[in-house]
Amino acid sequence: MSAPIRLGMVGGGSGAFIGAVHRIAARLDGEFTLVAGALSSTPEKARESAQALGLARSYDDYVAMAKKEARRKDGIEAVAIVTPNHMHAGPAIEFLKRGIHVICDKPLTATMAEASRLARIAEQSEALFILTHNYTGYPMVRQARAMVAAGALGRLRLVQVEYVQDWLTEAAERSGSKQAEWRTDPARSGAGGATGDIGTHAYNLACFVSGLTPEALAADLSVFVPGRALDDNAHVLMRFEGGAKGMLWASQVAPGNENGLRLRIYGEKGGLEWAQEDPNYLWFTPFGKPKQRLTRGGPGTVPDAARVTRTPAGHPEGYLEGFANLYAEAARAIRARQAGEAVPAEVIYPTLADGLAGMRFVEACVRSSGRNAAWVKL
Amino acid sequence: MSAPIRLGMVGGGSGAFIGAVHRIAARLDGEFTLVAGALSSTPEKARESAQALGLARSYDDYVAMAKKEARRKDGIEAVAIVTPNHMHAGPAIEFLKRGIHVICDKPLTATMAEASRLARIAEQSEALFILTHNYTGYPMVRQARAMVAAGALGRLRLVQVEYVQDWLTEAAERSGSKQAEWRTDPARSGAGGATGDIGTHAYNLACFVSGLTPEALAADLSVFVPGRALDDNAHVLMRFEGGAKGMLWASQVAPGNENGLRLRIYGEKGGLEWAQEDPNYLWFTPFGKPKQRLTRGGPGTVPDAARVTRTPAGHPEGYLEGFANLYAEAARAIRARQAGEAVPAEVIYPTLADGLAGMRFVEACVRSSGRNAAWVKL
Amino acid sequence: MSAPIRLGMVGGGSGAFIGAVHRIAARLDGEFTLVAGALSSTPEKARESAQALGLARSYDDYVAMAKKEARRKDGIEAVAIVTPNHMHAGPAIEFLKRGIHVICDKPLTATMAEASRLARIAEQSEALFILTHNYTGYPMVRQARAMVAAGALGRLRLVQVEYVQDWLTEAAERSGSKQAEWRTDPARSGAGGATGDIGTHAYNLACFVSGLTPEALAADLSVFVPGRALDDNAHVLMRFEGGAKGMLWASQVAPGNENGLRLRIYGEKGGLEWAQEDPNYLWFTPFGKPKQRLTRGGPGTVPDAARVTRTPAGHPEGYLEGFANLYAEAARAIRARQAGEAVPAEVIYPTLADGLAGMRFVEACVRSSGRNAAWVKL
Amino acid sequence: MSAPIRLGMVGGGSGAFIGAVHRIAARLDGEFTLVAGALSSTPEKARESAQALGLARSYDDYVAMAKKEARRKDGIEAVAIVTPNHMHAGPAIEFLKRGIHVICDKPLTATMAEASRLARIAEQSEALFILTHNYTGYPMVRQARAMVAAGALGRLRLVQVEYVQDWLTEAAERSGSKQAEWRTDPARSGAGGATGDIGTHAYNLACFVSGLTPEALAADLSVFVPGRALDDNAHVLMRFEGGAKGMLWASQVAPGNENGLRLRIYGEKGGLEWAQEDPNYLWFTPFGKPKQRLTRGGPGTVPDAARVTRTPAGHPEGYLEGFANLYAEAARAIRARQAGEAVPAEVIYPTLADGLAGMRFVEACVRSSGRNAAWVKL
Repeated sequence: MSAPIRLGMVGGGSGAFIGAVHRIAARLDGEFTLVAGALSSTPEKARESAQALGLARSYDDYVAMAKKEARRKDGIEAVAIVTPNHMHAGPAIEFLKRGIHVICDKPLTATMAEASRLARIAEQSEALFILTHNYTGYPMVRQARAMVAAGALGRLRLVQVEYVQDWLTEAAERSGSKQAEWRTDPARSGAGGATGDIGTHAYNLACFVSGLTPEALAADLSVFVPGRALDDNAHVLMRFEGGAKGMLWASQVAPGNENGLRLRIYGEKGGLEWAQEDPNYLWFTPFGKPKQRLTRGGPGTVPDAARVTRTPAGHPEGYLEGFANLYAEAARAIRARQAGEAVPAEVIYPTLADGLAGMRFVEACVRSSGRNAAWVKL
Repeated sequence: MSAPIRLGMVGGGSGAFIGAVHRIAARLDGEFTLVAGALSSTPEKARESAQALGLARSYDDYVAMAKKEARRKDGIEAVAIVTPNHMHAGPAIEFLKRGIHVICDKPLTATMAEASRLARIAEQSEALFILTHNYTGYPMVRQARAMVAAGALGRLRLVQVEYVQDWLTEAAERSGSKQAEWRTDPARSGAGGATGDIGTHAYNLACFVSGLTPEALAADLSVFVPGRALDDNAHVLMRFEGGAKGMLWASQVAPGNENGLRLRIYGEKGGLEWAQEDPNYLWFTPFGKPKQRLTRGGPGTVPDAARVTRTPAGHPEGYLEGFANLYAEAARAIRARQAGEAVPAEVIYPTLADGLAGMRFVEACVRSSGRNAAWVKL
Repeated sequence: MSAPIRLGMVGGGSGAFIGAVHRIAARLDGEFTLVAGALSSTPEKARESAQALGLARSYDDYVAMAKKEARRKDGIEAVAIVTPNHMHAGPAIEFLKRGIHVICDKPLTATMAEASRLARIAEQSEALFILTHNYTGYPMVRQARAMVAAGALGRLRLVQVEYVQDWLTEAAERSGSKQAEWRTDPARSGAGGATGDIGTHAYNLACFVSGLTPEALAADLSVFVPGRALDDNAHVLMRFEGGAKGMLWASQVAPGNENGLRLRIYGEKGGLEWAQEDPNYLWFTPFGKPKQRLTRGGPGTVPDAARVTRTPAGHPEGYLEGFANLYAEAARAIRARQAGEAVPAEVIYPTLADGLAGMRFVEACVRSSGRNAAWVKL
Repeated sequence: MSAPIRLGMVGGGSGAFIGAVHRIAARLDGEFTLVAGALSSTPEKARESAQALGLARSYDDYVAMAKKEARRKDGIEAVAIVTPNHMHAGPAIEFLKRGIHVICDKPLTATMAEASRLARIAEQSEALFILTHNYTGYPMVRQARAMVAAGALGRLRLVQVEYVQDWLTEAAERSGSKQAEWRTDPARSGAGGATGDIGTHAYNLACFVSGLTPEALAADLSVFVPGRALDDNAHVLMRFEGGAKGMLWASQVAPGNENGLRLRIYGEKGGLEWAQEDPNYLWFTPFGKPKQRLTRGGPGTVPDAARVTRTPAGHPEGYLEGFANLYAEAARAIRARQAGEAVPAEVIYPTLADGLAGMRFVEACVRSSGRNAAWVKL
């Protein structure tokens, strides 16, 4: 094992949810070591959080961090950006400009304008941009993708995807939930509510596994909780190049659902079904034969799944392992770059292109919904 | 127990699927006795089928049957119509005109014109018209409906329903399946394929349980199997009076799905989830509390469910029992009518109004889809 | 369809549970018509119950019934005995002696002495004796049995079976439950409590599917509810001829279990798993391959299962259909006998031999438990 | 966060399964840093493995390691022992003698003699001994334990536990599987095969959650694969102080089972059911009420579960997180010791006492089985 990659973090101060997840994910395989951070836009909080985490270097703002780290010999090689959406583009650009690899939470940005600016910078940078659509890291998602690509379902016809939660059933944003506050705030989240927060995950997953290119969508966005500024439910019809069709449902107001991300894909020859809350199973039905329950690491595992699994079949892996797989892939890609080599073909992670696709998805949903669910191109 | 009600049957000759189901359903509680039939439009087959079933009286056509049975003292009191869709209206009208109660398979008819004509006759008849949207007979569907009506979910927001099959994944209509032949034939099925055959069931179930009135829909119908004349997949967005919204998915080309009729309903205070293939369970989540698995006959059973259940909790009931519940309800209604009494308030069965609603649903889906999934009123 | 077989019933008066089940089961396929009964040992109740059911002939006691029916030209051809255990042998003998076929609830009798007497009479009778170990009627149980017999699991090693309930968790027998009263009363139930009531079902199922011959068992019977006279929990180890081993657990005091009859069988080449509460699924794992979910009527259905199924895959059958399958088998056997033919080889139903095996099982459990769970021969 | 605890490892060279698991578990929360190891008894392999892992210090044998590390200022503070069973006692004693905390894989040792010797040393040591019965680290196992302790089930009656696998269905030990080789070798595993390898886990889990003290057991151990020296299947009856009873089934020859560790506990007032392969759910039935599906982090979570959970409800945790929880608990205990404080009461981990209990369990199983499953005291 080579020395761990030196990692910085922007955002993720004490109390943040996703920052802690990124830290565990980075640590799990021993490929990264967190050494620097601008953990909060409040300097005091940034310092305290850094101390609590035992960070070598704490910065009050990400610009200073980018500048100084870029100059150090032992400066960070990569940075994790785990701020709310509207604070993605700024830091990403600063680090990319200086050749520091960026691992950024989703969705890409809060606005299309930011996304475009970021894309331009990224194109000119030698550094990698990895977007943490973490569900693509689950081994059985990789298995599904590989099976589809290998033709196990034949030509695809249907892609049904949903991401369903219930935590915004009531106005949590008005009863002290920080998570709810920024996610329902257009200034920090962008134009999409449920659409941006979880709809993009569902959309990304559907595209990742199916390999299909979406052509158009028709969306009916709703705000069910009075006074909320962003959609808390999205009903979307989709059409793909080549004739496949699909439905996407994203909701944060469906009681009894925690993180119900579910994907079902059907083709001329078979079907695949997967659910994030039970991620170690993949249900495969070759048309006309009994349904099979494939298990992570079990019989029928393909190489793309095997290479991102750590424990034997029946010893479940979960959300953190899937997330960590993106970090592991990032590490492989970064090390290849550092060695002047091409990133190996089997290394898979969501990129800026996926981030832009997600932004177009949100934008299209909002636009379509504004036109009474008319079809809009993607 | 009073003497069984004398029942006739139109359609359901040897080889038919749904005729046999109706016969078991009629027999299960001992409330009906099948005594006459015009079991096939082919006289020879009609007679042979009648003999095979030990029927007292066999007719070559339903008009003769209606006339003669109406004149007999021991003539049939009710008739089950189990023909393909285009043959519903004709016999239904003949029997209704003569005061014979009609138990008719769904969808109501093949065309709106037929439906309207039937509706006019039915209005003038003393006889009852019962439409076998049989899934409304499941005890846990009754339980769900009663819980929604009692406010267990609060004001409703979301109705997600789907009916998914795979038996038309390939062109079964061209390889000898009689069932597939008429269901994919506009002349016999009407304008809707999957939409009419199973979409109407899903739509009916959603309305039955939610108690909501649909306002508009947007539908994207597809034909995936080349050469097929009717849709084999329907993607539908729905809006209900009062602001609730929903999605309906009906498919006959999704490998790995047998009769995947699933309903999920969410309101401000809770959620309910039910699946036809595991019909003895109803999943109830009061918002902010653990999900509960209600079982048929188990703790928490409401009277509306208890009165249509025959076996204790843990001894599963199935499709035939649910179907038989409609026959049992029909018997109760018929006996009340025969006694000159009002049909008791707790007796529930789908009526002509439900049949008309189903026809409007199919018509609206076809119309919307023809206009690129534009919203159409219901 | 031939004319229905004329059926009588002993026991099953108003309020009884299993009598109603037998009546539905007898009626479901139209093969039997209930015409006579001695429905209660209380003459008044017998008459009222008969009237409520619309029975042609009611008797005050089963001896009179047996004598009179045997003499009538239109007398019953078969009788269903649905009394508590201690009232099985008496009526069974009366009817068998007179050549009337007997369909008897399980366990066979309350005592071994009765069982032996009944066996002697049955041997001399031309009439058939069918024991309603109804779970053997489930199509997927038939499927499992056929697969085992065909070698799908290879040589068997393990048979794990359990039947778990919770309805006797508290002293229901002291709070007015008639069902609980006689089932916890040695005078009416015999020496086994849970062992006899549900343990025999589990034991029968294990033997039916595995085809193995039990050799010995070691049982630890318990009474958990103070004051109860019979076991409410049974823990049993089993050894079979040929070296296979197993465990059997029967309990009526396990909260959260309704009718949790579950069977798991493993051999050198594969495993099968089935649960009564979800009876339309059978889980099959060929060793080293993914687990398959076989469905009733779905791909992979064998003839033994197909011939006892009524509805297509995905339209669930339940407890009553499984029970009715035994009546349907009984009808086939009776008609064969009446035609002077051998009962067809594919017709399967539990016989007196199974009843005797169940009695030996209960007796062995009680004996072993009395000797501190020492092994006893079967 | 304080500086990570310096950790050493004995065993776990390249190719070993459980060593990698321990390393991830140690790393996951950032509480440990692996700095030294005697990773293999083959010096060459030890060195190569250490290099591959980037270890600071590699030793050819554990004695040298214990001596030298104990003398260093920056020596290891704790050691993970991840060798086969017969190599637990030796290293554990060496490190305990020198005040280095020991985190040891289960079962405790291969023989009772070793276990006793280890126990004597441990008693005299200041250092902690943590046994990785890792399943006790699952949050929902902690939840179950707390609920039982709080009386949610009332007085306990039944404990049904099983750990079922299929990987030894064929003679994997003769086709090159290192894991199978040592686990079926008495010299390396001890007297128990499945009993020691997974039976001890099941036994530990049952005791951990129930809080009951086992009194006696009766075991029927089997060797199903010809030529195998140790049991591959164990059927065990159990009796607990206070009258509760149970069954334990451990098998490695049941096709279709991967790591099927399942626990069901029933008391006078309710029941709990948990399965390791779906570890984020705990099924709770208060007697007479609907079954509830508790989820990790969801409504109803108790503090004992909340404190060992990292991700929100619906984002599943798995085997590694559960394992890591033991390391996190170890870290808390070690830090308390280092601070001269008592280990906080809420910190829970399996100790030497649990290890000894496991050894007694194996010994009792073997003894009982040798006496034809007679009851033996525990």
